[in-house]
Amino acid sequence: MEQTTLFEVIMNLYRRKKFSELKAIMAEMNPADVANIIESADGRDVIALFRLLPKSLATEAFAYIDSEQQEQLITAFTDRELREVIDELFLDDTVDLIEEMPANIVNRILKNTDSKTREQINELLAYPADSAGSLMTPEYVYLKTDMTVEESFAKIRAVGVVKETIYTCYVTEERKLVGVVSLLDLLTASYETVIGEIMDTNVISVNTKDDKEVVATTLAKYDLLAIPVVDGENRIVGIVTVDDAMDVLQEENTEDIEKMAAIVPTDKPYFKTGVFETFLKRIPWLLLLMVSATFTGMIITGFEDKLAASVVLTAFIPMLMDTGGNAGGQSSVTIIRGLSLGDIELRDVLSVIWKEIRVGVICGGVLAVVNFGKMLLIDRLILGNPAVTATVALVVCLTMFVAVFIAKLIGCSLPILAKAVGFDPAVMASPFITTIVDAITLLAYFMIAQGLMHI
Amino acid sequence: MEQTTLFEVIMNLYRRKKFSELKAIMAEMNPADVANIIESADGRDVIALFRLLPKSLATEAFAYIDSEQQEQLITAFTDRELREVIDELFLDDTVDLIEEMPANIVNRILKNTDSKTREQINELLAYPADSAGSLMTPEYVYLKTDMTVEESFAKIRAVGVVKETIYTCYVTEERKLVGVVSLLDLLTASYETVIGEIMDTNVISVNTKDDKEVVATTLAKYDLLAIPVVDGENRIVGIVTVDDAMDVLQEENTEDIEKMAAIVPTDKPYFKTGVFETFLKRIPWLLLLMVSATFTGMIITGFEDKLAASVVLTAFIPMLMDTGGNAGGQSSVTIIRGLSLGDIELRDVLSVIWKEIRVGVICGGVLAVVNFGKMLLIDRLILGNPAVTATVALVVCLTMFVAVFIAKLIGCSLPILAKAVGFDPAVMASPFITTIVDAITLLAYFMIAQGLMHI
Repeated sequence: MEQTTLFEVIMNLYRRKKFSELKAIMAEMNPADVANIIESADGRDVIALFRLLPKSLATEAFAYIDSEQQEQLITAFTDRELREVIDELFLDDTVDLIEEMPANIVNRILKNTDSKTREQINELLAYPADSAGSLMTPEYVYLKTDMTVEESFAKIRAVGVVKETIYTCYVTEERKLVGVVSLLDLLTASYETVIGEIMDTNVISVNTKDDKEVVATTLAKYDLLAIPVVDGENRIVGIVTVDDAMDVLQEENTEDIEKMAAIVPTDKPYFKTGVFETFLKRIPWLLLLMVSATFTGMIITGFEDKLAASVVLTAFIPMLMDTGGNAGGQSSVTIIRGLSLGDIELRDVLSVIWKEIRVGVICGGVLAVVNFGKMLLIDRLILGNPAVTATVALVVCLTMFVAVFIAKLIGCSLPILAKAVGFDPAVMASPFITTIVDAITLLAYFMIAQGLMHI
Repeated sequence: MEQTTLFEVIMNLYRRKKFSELKAIMAEMNPADVANIIESADGRDVIALFRLLPKSLATEAFAYIDSEQQEQLITAFTDRELREVIDELFLDDTVDLIEEMPANIVNRILKNTDSKTREQINELLAYPADSAGSLMTPEYVYLKTDMTVEESFAKIRAVGVVKETIYTCYVTEERKLVGVVSLLDLLTASYETVIGEIMDTNVISVNTKDDKEVVATTLAKYDLLAIPVVDGENRIVGIVTVDDAMDVLQEENTEDIEKMAAIVPTDKPYFKTGVFETFLKRIPWLLLLMVSATFTGMIITGFEDKLAASVVLTAFIPMLMDTGGNAGGQSSVTIIRGLSLGDIELRDVLSVIWKEIRVGVICGGVLAVVNFGKMLLIDRLILGNPAVTATVALVVCLTMFVAVFIAKLIGCSLPILAKAVGFDPAVMASPFITTIVDAITLLAYFMIAQGLMHI
C-alpha cells in the first residue's frame, strides 16, 4: 500500500470544500512545496488553490511555479492580483517570466509594472540569452568607501529588505566597483569604522557578456554567495546569487548529458515535453547517425566474398563494434566532462593523448587476451563451434586490440578538437565516436583476416 | 603567441629570488587562485611558495589545495605551522583532510589539535561516508526562543567570526530544532523583539543519515544558504553550507556521467588519476559487456546458413545495431537524468512507458521510411548494389522499426526497474542497454528475413 501524499490530503480537503482547514495547512508550508502542489493540480483548481494562499506566501510560491501554470494563473488574475505578484517578484524572476510568456501576457505584465521597473526589465531583456547580464538582478546593496559601518547598517536596513541578497555589499566609486564587504565584516567592526578600511579590494567579478556557465563556475570556485556583474568599464550593473548559479550548473549538466546521448537539449522537464516535441529532439541525431552508417555497410559489402567464404567472422562483428564503441565512449565522456569542469584545458591535448595511448594499450591488451581465452573455451569447447579456430580467435583478438586502441585515441582527441574549433565537445560523445570507430574496426577486421587467414 | 600566465610571472620572480615583489603580488590574490598556483608548482617550490604567503592568506589557501600537495605541505610543516593551519580550518575541512591523509599524517594532525576539537573530529568521522553527517560542520550559531534581537547580535558577534556561516541562525529548545531566523530578519527587527516572535517554525532540515545528494538537492530546491542536520530526535547536530552542497552536486553529476559511460566512478580529476588506475576504472565494464556479447555471436551463428545464402543482410547489421543502441541510449539517459533530478518518480513508470511507446513508434516509423528510401536510392542506385532489392530494404526497415521501438521500451523501463530494486539507475545507461538491444535486434532481423525472404 502506498502512503497518502500531502497532495492527496489537500485535494481531498479541496474537493470537500474544507477551505479553512486547507488554508491552515498550506499557510504552514514552504513556498517551494506549495508550488509543487499547485503544479500537480489541473485546470481551474490551479487558480482556486492559489487564491486560498495567504498573500505573501502566494507571491513567494509564484516564483517557483512552472511557466505553464504561471501562464494559467496570470490569465486568470485580475490586474490587481497581477500587480501584487509582480511587485513582490525579484527582478530577475520577472525577466525570466517575461521571456517564457506569450506576447499578450507580456503586455499585461508590462502594463502592470511601474515605469522604473519596466525600464530595468527592458535593460535586462537586452542582454543576450545565456549571458551573465540575462541572469543577474540589479537589486544589490552598494556602499561608498567613506561611509561608516553605522551608516552602512542604516542603508542596509533601509533598502535591504527587498534585495535578493544583502549578505555581500559592493563598494563603488563613480559607479565603478572598488571593493566588497560582507555583512559579517560589518557586524564584527565598530560602528565608526570606515568602509574603505575594512573592504576587500580583491573583487572577483564577471562581465555582462560572460556565459552564464562561466558565472556559475566562478561563483562555485571562490565559494561566493553572490558575484558582481560589471560592464566593460568595471561599473557594477548587477549581481548573480548562488541559488541561481546552482540552477545554472544543474541545467548545464543536463544539457551536456543530453548532448552526449545524441539528444537536442531542451530545458523542460521530462513530463512537460510533449510526445512530438520529444520526437523532434531525438530524431535529428538518429537520422544523421543512421545515414552515416552507410560507410560500415559499404565496407562489409566490399569484403562480401571473403565473408561468404568464412561466415564465422560475422558472428564477432557485434562484439568488436560494441567493445570499440564502449572503449571510445569511456574516453570521450571523460574528456568532455574534464573540459567542462576545467580539469582539462586545450593546451593539455598532448598529455591527454599520451595518457589515453597507454590506457588504450593496457585495456586493449587485457581485453584481447581474455577474449582469446573466452573464444577457445566458450565458443569452441562449450558451445561446440568447430569454425572458431585459434587463427579465427587470433584475428578477432588482434582486431579487438586495434579497435580499443583507436577508439581511445579518437575518443580523447575529437572532443578537444571540437572545442578548439569552437564546437561544443559534448556532441562528440559515444554515438558519434561509435560511428567512426565502427568503420575503422571493420576495416581492420577484414584486413587482419585477409592477412592471417588468406581468404 | 600565448599570453604569459600569472603562474609564469610568479615562477619567474621566484626563480630570480625577487621575494618581496612575489609577496606583494600574492598578498593581493584570492585564496582559491593562490591554491591553483601552489598546485601547479612542483616539489620543494610548493612549501617555499606557501611560506611566502601572509599567514592568514596561507591558511585560507590551504583549504583549497589538492590533497596531494596538502600532504607535501604537512610533511614539511613544523608543528607550529601545522597548528596554525588546523586552527584556522573549518571543522568539516579538517575532517575531509584527515580522510584523505595517510595514518602518520593523521596522527600528527590529531596531536596538534586541542582535545575538544579532536572529540568533534572523531564524532564527524563516525558518520558513514556520503551521509549528511559526514558533510556537515558543527560550527553554527544557535539562539533561544526567549532571547532578544539585541542579545542575539551579541551572541553572533561573540561566536560568529569563526563560524562557517552566520547568515542563518538556528533556534533550539533542549537542543531540539524549533525554528530558524535569518540575519536579515534580525537586522530589520527592533532590538527588543524576542526571537520566538520572528523565527520561522517551518524549518527544512535533513537527517544525519540522509545521503549527501539528498542534502544538496533539498538545499537547492528551497534556495537555502545552509541546511540544518538533525539526529533521530530532531536535535540539531550541524549544518551543511551552500558551497559544499554545490560541490556535492558537481561530484554527483560527474559520477552519474561516468557510470553512464560504463566507467567505475572516481572522485579524482583526470590528470590526478594514474594510467593504471584509469585502466582499472574502465576495464570491468568493458570485460563484462564484451563477454555478454557472446549472445549476439550465438544468434548470428544460429542463423549462419541463412546469412551465407543472403550475404547482403550482413551489410546492414552495424547500422541496425547502432541505431537501436542510440535510440535506447536516448531514452535511458533521459530517464536516468529525470530520476536523479526528481522530475521522474518510481510511481510514474506507466506514464513513462506510455510516452516512450508513442515516441518509439514515431521515431521508428520515420527512421524506417527514410532508411527505405536511402537503401533504394543510395545503396541500390548510386552505389549500384543489385543485391539490395525492395524485399531486402523492407526486411531492414521493418527490423529498424522493431529495434527502435524495443530500444525505447527497454531504455526507459530498465533504469526505473533498477531504481525500484535499489540499484543505481545510472549503470543502466547506453552500453548496458546496447548489449540487450543488439541481441533483440539481431533476432528480429533474422526472423523477419526468414518470413519475408523465405531463406
